[in-house]
Amino acid sequence: MTREPPATNEGWYALHDFRTIDWDAWRDAPEREREAALDAGVSFLRDRVDVTDAEDGSSAVFSMLGHKADLLVIHFRPTMADLDTAERAFEETAFAEYTDQTNSYVSVTEVGGYTNEEMTKEPSEIEDTGLARYAESKLYPEIPDSEFVCFYPMDKRRAPGENWYDLPFDERADMMDTHGEIGKTYAGQVSQVITGSIGFDDYEWGVDLFSNDATNIKDLLYELRFDESSSKYAEFGPFYFGRQFPPEDLPAFMAG
Amino acid sequence: MTREPPATNEGWYALHDFRTIDWDAWRDAPEREREAALDAGVSFLRDRVDVTDAEDGSSAVFSMLGHKADLLVIHFRPTMADLDTAERAFEETAFAEYTDQTNSYVSVTEVGGYTNEEMTKEPSEIEDTGLARYAESKLYPEIPDSEFVCFYPMDKRRAPGENWYDLPFDERADMMDTHGEIGKTYAGQVSQVITGSIGFDDYEWGVDLFSNDATNIKDLLYELRFDESSSKYAEFGPFYFGRQFPPEDLPAFMAG
Amino acid sequence: MTREPPATNEGWYALHDFRTIDWDAWRDAPEREREAALDAGVSFLRDRVDVTDAEDGSSAVFSMLGHKADLLVIHFRPTMADLDTAERAFEETAFAEYTDQTNSYVSVTEVGGYTNEEMTKEPSEIEDTGLARYAESKLYPEIPDSEFVCFYPMDKRRAPGENWYDLPFDERADMMDTHGEIGKTYAGQVSQVITGSIGFDDYEWGVDLFSNDATNIKDLLYELRFDESSSKYAEFGPFYFGRQFPPEDLPAFMAG
Amino acid sequence: MTREPPATNEGWYALHDFRTIDWDAWRDAPEREREAALDAGVSFLRDRVDVTDAEDGSSAVFSMLGHKADLLVIHFRPTMADLDTAERAFEETAFAEYTDQTNSYVSVTEVGGYTNEEMTKEPSEIEDTGLARYAESKLYPEIPDSEFVCFYPMDKRRAPGENWYDLPFDERADMMDTHGEIGKTYAGQVSQVITGSIGFDDYEWGVDLFSNDATNIKDLLYELRFDESSSKYAEFGPFYFGRQFPPEDLPAFMAG
Amino acid sequence: MTREPPATNEGWYALHDFRTIDWDAWRDAPEREREAALDAGVSFLRDRVDVTDAEDGSSAVFSMLGHKADLLVIHFRPTMADLDTAERAFEETAFAEYTDQTNSYVSVTEVGGYTNEEMTKEPSEIEDTGLARYAESKLYPEIPDSEFVCFYPMDKRRAPGENWYDLPFDERADMMDTHGEIGKTYAGQVSQVITGSIGFDDYEWGVDLFSNDATNIKDLLYELRFDESSSKYAEFGPFYFGRQFPPEDLPAFMAG
Repeated sequence: MTREPPATNEGWYALHDFRTIDWDAWRDAPEREREAALDAGVSFLRDRVDVTDAEDGSSAVFSMLGHKADLLVIHFRPTMADLDTAERAFEETAFAEYTDQTNSYVSVTEVGGYTNEEMTKEPSEIEDTGLARYAESKLYPEIPDSEFVCFYPMDKRRAPGENWYDLPFDERADMMDTHGEIGKTYAGQVSQVITGSIGFDDYEWGVDLFSNDATNIKDLLYELRFDESSSKYAEFGPFYFGRQFPPEDLPAFMAG
Repeated sequence: MTREPPATNEGWYALHDFRTIDWDAWRDAPEREREAALDAGVSFLRDRVDVTDAEDGSSAVFSMLGHKADLLVIHFRPTMADLDTAERAFEETAFAEYTDQTNSYVSVTEVGGYTNEEMTKEPSEIEDTGLARYAESKLYPEIPDSEFVCFYPMDKRRAPGENWYDLPFDERADMMDTHGEIGKTYAGQVSQVITGSIGFDDYEWGVDLFSNDATNIKDLLYELRFDESSSKYAEFGPFYFGRQFPPEDLPAFMAG
Repeated sequence: MTREPPATNEGWYALHDFRTIDWDAWRDAPEREREAALDAGVSFLRDRVDVTDAEDGSSAVFSMLGHKADLLVIHFRPTMADLDTAERAFEETAFAEYTDQTNSYVSVTEVGGYTNEEMTKEPSEIEDTGLARYAESKLYPEIPDSEFVCFYPMDKRRAPGENWYDLPFDERADMMDTHGEIGKTYAGQVSQVITGSIGFDDYEWGVDLFSNDATNIKDLLYELRFDESSSKYAEFGPFYFGRQFPPEDLPAFMAG
Repeated sequence: MTREPPATNEGWYALHDFRTIDWDAWRDAPEREREAALDAGVSFLRDRVDVTDAEDGSSAVFSMLGHKADLLVIHFRPTMADLDTAERAFEETAFAEYTDQTNSYVSVTEVGGYTNEEMTKEPSEIEDTGLARYAESKLYPEIPDSEFVCFYPMDKRRAPGENWYDLPFDERADMMDTHGEIGKTYAGQVSQVITGSIGFDDYEWGVDLFSNDATNIKDLLYELRFDESSSKYAEFGPFYFGRQFPPEDLPAFMAG
Repeated sequence: MTREPPATNEGWYALHDFRTIDWDAWRDAPEREREAALDAGVSFLRDRVDVTDAEDGSSAVFSMLGHKADLLVIHFRPTMADLDTAERAFEETAFAEYTDQTNSYVSVTEVGGYTNEEMTKEPSEIEDTGLARYAESKLYPEIPDSEFVCFYPMDKRRAPGENWYDLPFDERADMMDTHGEIGKTYAGQVSQVITGSIGFDDYEWGVDLFSNDATNIKDLLYELRFDESSSKYAEFGPFYFGRQFPPEDLPAFMAG
């Protein structure tokens, strides 16, 4: 059956929560209200980064470049209910008054079996310990403390004549293999989390790239763009770029 | 006549009513107004779920993930007038003050006759009782109390060279058959309601998938994407994902 | 000259004026202001339906399903100046305070001569009295008091390889003929007004379908979608669906 | 060199300034403020129509049909600085408080040399006095006092297989010639101003059509749509349609 | 390896910060608040143009034509952190209260090695001093004090059959060479800064063109549009056009 889908395994659910700051309201707020808001904001973010709200997971906060968002909070959690709660709990804080949720992305970490079906077993059942550790890091990702994040959603193309979903499994597997090889040449420079979002959000996948060098992210993506799996078969959504900061630096972030 | 459309039968009309919460107004509202709003909201939702507003039908409430909506109320009702009333009645409640209707979908439950034209008779006139029960469940659907819902609208493609509406009936019927077979392998895990919306809304169909396991929904849709009726002929609109809750839990929902 | 355009004749100009209700403002308005607004609204709508504002024409009011609009007022009038006045006169009423004009469509009733060029003469100059009456009803349409309206704008496709405007006249005429035959099988169930909008609005035509049975509209449009003039050559804009009500029922409409 | 671009000559820069009226604010404004606003508005528009703000040019005011705009002010001026000033000077008037600038178009009058390169000389250097007068009227257009205006932006298509910019010069020139011939058959009924906007705005050209008969505009554009330069190679933006009025009629315009 | 990407070198990061003015708030502001806002605005802009906020870079301010933006501030800086700070520092000024950030573009200056790989070395390591100076001017650009700027983002096309990223390196290099030759014929009339934005923003590149003659920009872009690298392989985003002014002229700008 050449049309068969790849095996996949899923781990933590993911919410990318994009916020803009209402700078006019912030500028006009009395000092006391600002302080209360910052206390509430730091406390909310600290609790998520420390994962006090769920059994497991990881969260991080980013200052976003450009007008599309000012703030991004990424949550990885074991259940959709955890994400649903994290999203609404933010709105209950005094800090939320100075933010609008202008965008978001809902997905789940995904490991695909194109190049090695063994990888789609639960990590504890994978015999090769290196592979098990790798799968575990993709399904239950600790967000690295790199300075930069790049997030974008994407689809595989389904145009007449260039249709990923009409290709035989082996052809797709070959392309994913080559694609992965390019990624590996950036090991240690750019780390990546892939989440699947079919049924959860408007694109099929969401991609997070973390790095301490912004140009490394550009170089990797430019190189990939010439790879057939991207050049012929990728359709990209909007790109978001930000800089990580610890919850404690929220006051500095809001001070401009 | 190879171009002929399939026979269809229609049942209850459907309104998907998507709302965002005005969290700023909610945070600022005095406790007494909040309580009055919650009473009105619970009462409105309870009445719809209990279908006290019409001769028949079913309704359910969902907490939505992400920024596209916070709340989804699905109504199935015998007439368009019932839906029109339900939509406006919501606006008369004190709870509506804290919501904006940011999206919606208008459609009608539809059973198609590609694989079995018998199914497009009124259920009471279908001889095979199993088939009659099946048709009834599709035309007059009780919303299951599953935790999750996934809703998306879709079209069949009309691109030059890949045009669903230019295919012979038999070819379409074969594809719908294969498509249905994949769905059946998820029986008991994912249940589905199909509504038609040609003339009522911007896409041709709306699809609701209900399940207690979010990953089951993703698995089903990913598998279907490789099926020719989707890979070549489906154009998808936005995807919405939410968690069901009983009307009585509206206060907990609003508490974050 | 095979590329020649069809002859057309034009009648009344048409404005579809879509409004959303500002329910928050309405809920907060004092009873006296509500009453004054309703009086003004009923009076404005009544005058248009009675066509006291122009030499001739017809108008009707609809409660719209879904978030795209709450209210639709359709005006057919002899001149663009009449429409311009009707649109601005609405804004002068106390009722307008509770509405926003979120959409609109500007066009003119059009009779095309693909199948019978005689029809594009002024009705008074058409010898066949049946045909004259038919042309008159299309150019100077009385809006039927059917419960439902479906409105959508559309273009003819100009894609490479499927370009309506590059087809020989005869081929286009044949397709329009078949198209019309399908419409005729719904005579008495669905009535239709075609308006042209090249140069007036973003699509090339606007279509109104009136019926007392919502499913009839869906059935007709679904059947047409398999007809070559639609399957290969139609590009549809958004669809709007509503229920007609007499101006006097505006208070009931606003009461939810 | 078959790919060469046509010679062009440019004249006055053009700003199409589209405004919606904030009718709610207008209805609520005290009579005295309304009067002051109208005085300021009439005075601003009068000065532009009289071109007291620049060395040369022409301006006109239109009441727009539909929700996309209520008011359009067209300015033709010798420099971009003149347009920049006109746009900001409007905002300084008391009348601007009741308007929002919801759209605009920035371009420059353009004469192209596809059919006659002589025409792209400065009019004073064109020997044929008829041609000189024609070029002058296109580069430095007096806005006619016709009742109606139709404005739309457009691109030439660059799709695979139908790419205007890949055609040999002669083929493009032939098509532009035929295109122009159709326009000439409407001489005296519809007058036209072409502005180029590559580098200035999102489309490549802006087109203004002026006429005292709305149907003439529709007829011309419908006929052109069957011409190969449009049917295969034109991509149209949104269409705007309005009615001209003298600045002194602003109070009547605002009175509904 | 014919699919290989070109070598690139990157210099300063770039933020295009587009703002609209809230003219209603400005008109209503007391004189004292206006003055304080102008002082703060001039001071912020002056500091950026003088680059007192970072180790190196350049900034400039523009009055934008049309509704898409009123103000554009361009920043080139050594690090993404510098841009992040510049963007938020603006919001802390009293002037920001009268602006909204409606658009932006995040990118990095880029020199590509299609025609000469030597150019992608660090300028200090390029032996040819003319080439070194050229590369330096592209990577660390001083914004010229020309009157006009044109900014637009763009992609290279990846359509079936016309896919830039599937072309052999040599074919791409040839096209870029021809493309560059056209640009050179405008030397001294139009100067250009290219920034790459893969991973940083929604398009692949951002282009700034500076000139004292608006028509020169139009002529250059029109000529390029017939060049194969544009006609077949360029997809353009929105175009922005503005006039440079020194920070000290902000009060004149705000005075209309």
